Amino acid sequence: MTNTEEIVHNLATLAKAASYKLASLTSEEKNRALLAIAHSLDENRSYIKAENALDIKAAIEAALAKPLIERLTLTDQTIDNMIASVHSIIKLSDPVGKLITTRTLDNGLELRKIRTPIGVIGIIFESRPNVVTDVAALCLKSGNAVILRGGKEAEHSNRAIMKVIEDALNKIEFTPHAVQMVPIADRSAVSYLCRLTGLIDLIIPRGGEALIKAVSDAATVPVIKHYKGVCHIYVDETADVAMALDICHNAKCQRPGVCNACETILVHDKIADSFLPKLYDLFTKANVEMRGDEQARAICPGMKAATTADWSEEYLDLIIAIKVVHSTQEAIDHINHFGSHHSDAIITDNKNTKLKFTKEVDSAVVYVNASTRFTDGFVFGLGAEMGISTDKLHARGPMGLEELCTYKWVCLGDGQIR
Amino acid sequence: MTNTEEIVHNLATLAKAASYKLASLTSEEKNRALLAIAHSLDENRSYIKAENALDIKAAIEAALAKPLIERLTLTDQTIDNMIASVHSIIKLSDPVGKLITTRTLDNGLELRKIRTPIGVIGIIFESRPNVVTDVAALCLKSGNAVILRGGKEAEHSNRAIMKVIEDALNKIEFTPHAVQMVPIADRSAVSYLCRLTGLIDLIIPRGGEALIKAVSDAATVPVIKHYKGVCHIYVDETADVAMALDICHNAKCQRPGVCNACETILVHDKIADSFLPKLYDLFTKANVEMRGDEQARAICPGMKAATTADWSEEYLDLIIAIKVVHSTQEAIDHINHFGSHHSDAIITDNKNTKLKFTKEVDSAVVYVNASTRFTDGFVFGLGAEMGISTDKLHARGPMGLEELCTYKWVCLGDGQIR
Repeated sequence: MTNTEEIVHNLATLAKAASYKLASLTSEEKNRALLAIAHSLDENRSYIKAENALDIKAAIEAALAKPLIERLTLTDQTIDNMIASVHSIIKLSDPVGKLITTRTLDNGLELRKIRTPIGVIGIIFESRPNVVTDVAALCLKSGNAVILRGGKEAEHSNRAIMKVIEDALNKIEFTPHAVQMVPIADRSAVSYLCRLTGLIDLIIPRGGEALIKAVSDAATVPVIKHYKGVCHIYVDETADVAMALDICHNAKCQRPGVCNACETILVHDKIADSFLPKLYDLFTKANVEMRGDEQARAICPGMKAATTADWSEEYLDLIIAIKVVHSTQEAIDHINHFGSHHSDAIITDNKNTKLKFTKEVDSAVVYVNASTRFTDGFVFGLGAEMGISTDKLHARGPMGLEELCTYKWVCLGDGQIR
Repeated sequence: MTNTEEIVHNLATLAKAASYKLASLTSEEKNRALLAIAHSLDENRSYIKAENALDIKAAIEAALAKPLIERLTLTDQTIDNMIASVHSIIKLSDPVGKLITTRTLDNGLELRKIRTPIGVIGIIFESRPNVVTDVAALCLKSGNAVILRGGKEAEHSNRAIMKVIEDALNKIEFTPHAVQMVPIADRSAVSYLCRLTGLIDLIIPRGGEALIKAVSDAATVPVIKHYKGVCHIYVDETADVAMALDICHNAKCQRPGVCNACETILVHDKIADSFLPKLYDLFTKANVEMRGDEQARAICPGMKAATTADWSEEYLDLIIAIKVVHSTQEAIDHINHFGSHHSDAIITDNKNTKLKFTKEVDSAVVYVNASTRFTDGFVFGLGAEMGISTDKLHARGPMGLEELCTYKWVCLGDGQIR
């Protein structure tokens, strides 16, 4: 065992022991801990912002893209949001112990399907230091122990927030080791963590392709991927043009640095001649760089040329790929092939096309005549979110408290045999 | 790409294409296919039994354990059960397209959480050729394409049943490639299959330690393990002795070759002196070999000595491990450490002990005063079962039609932007 492995193994062992205790806590005990965290965040604003400034300085020096720096930055507003998020999780009903279904066999054996915590969850994430509080609060409320591992670019911010959480929990003598962070930068820590069958119950990688691939390749414990959002809008031949323009503009420009922003627009060729020039003007005014396929550029020669790589690119910036398609089937096939199974929209007025698209697009969230920007745990009514699962197993789309639980069957008898 | 990889990649590509078609089939179309399979099984009994005889002959020559040969054997009774199982799946309600929940946002956007097939499922299993029909029928009804890979010991039987299914589906011109079997014995086929991200959506390994470990280590696609059943009965100090004897006898002897049979009995030391001699007599009459720890053997010297390896052994035979424990906590810790998180029971008359045990034992099914033998999809009201998941993610315990589905969010708007 290397030194790194020893440190990680120790973290995981402590987390497992904590998880058994967390599973038995009352909602009141858990909410008390959350309240302590919220207070502590408020009291330590200047410490958190000072540490965050170190990360921002490094990001500027490393010339990171603007939206990435935006995601990294903690202002009083962001900290307010972090605190509000903890308070909203306090208000959510506790999923643990809820009876999902029940059934009594003819012999009198009573089966109860009961919601329980998963156990120990490892989350590996990039940028966005506010993930630390969201994840800690959600795991805590759902009775799970959690081990966090953030990205290098937010190192100081993450560590500062973690310290604030730890101090708050220690002060009220909460179950120790409920929330932990991997204390070393060594990359092998992640691949080792992902192989601790029996100690780690679930790994959630939340980030880009390199992170997701590294974790999937290394892991032997279950993984729920929170992959990039290569979100599409398909403008069908029957689309309401004004609506389509509004939605394309909103999905690309309102907040380009997030995973539910649109990255590719597919346009039916029957509407391309009238639609694309208007889209071109709109995006030009909004400073959006357009990368079109050959047919799109024949209509709007001002677009740059798209390459195959553009079809699977998550720009997280004011850049968009544009392609002309010749049928709904072609749009569906393109989305299923190049997309990331996150959020995809169709703008159409045709009932059958709508039905075909929602049935056949293999994504977590499929929109009809609406912006992809709505994919969000809070918007969907799940309270805060752990992230957006782009996988199909266990949780798909926004992952909230219920999705952080599993269930067990408890069967109550009085001597039944088979 | 090796020849094996090419064959497996081709299977998976065909399955993926089939999965999109299967997702859109009506319940009537799927039930028609199931009916054709049921008829075809009935018509081809002698062919199936003749091929099965080849496997049994080989198993006897290889001196396989009796319960293993029992699991391998197809009689007219077993074939009746296979047919009955297909008919029972026809009668089950179709999970696909069911509305799980719905919510309308203030802006009028309507969110619908809808049950959908998972896509392409790979199942890797050992012995029990009747798994082929159960799995094919369940996947078909839930709109999933499936790729099966059985064990060498049931090679002829599996292939024969697969041929019967294929012929039945071809005859009614059903969606091709819905049910496929890996046609080669090469072991590398399995590890390659488990890494086909984008083509395979889920791998279910169903079998013993070596199989589960090989698949978990190799896989990059999601895995739901159907691991062995190291099931426990904990006889608490307050247990009703007659009830405890009945349940121990039933859980060990009624059908020792199945995963929900009991493999270890834990006895509280306060009841051990009175309970163990009675258990010893009962098991001696039933030809059960007992392997006790030191304290159990001090009471019943006729028991063989258990080694540490016995605590995690799935005997699948008339053998049982017996250990004296000194508290409910010790019993729980033993089960969580050595068990396989399948099915575990407590025999007790104490309310608090009952509660502690059901909360803290980390298993798919936890029984109070009942035999572990009830863990079964059919008994639990799920219809037939794909197997028993010993994992915590997505499905835990018996896996039926609903557990073979995921969901998507379909959001219907009229121009909503954020």
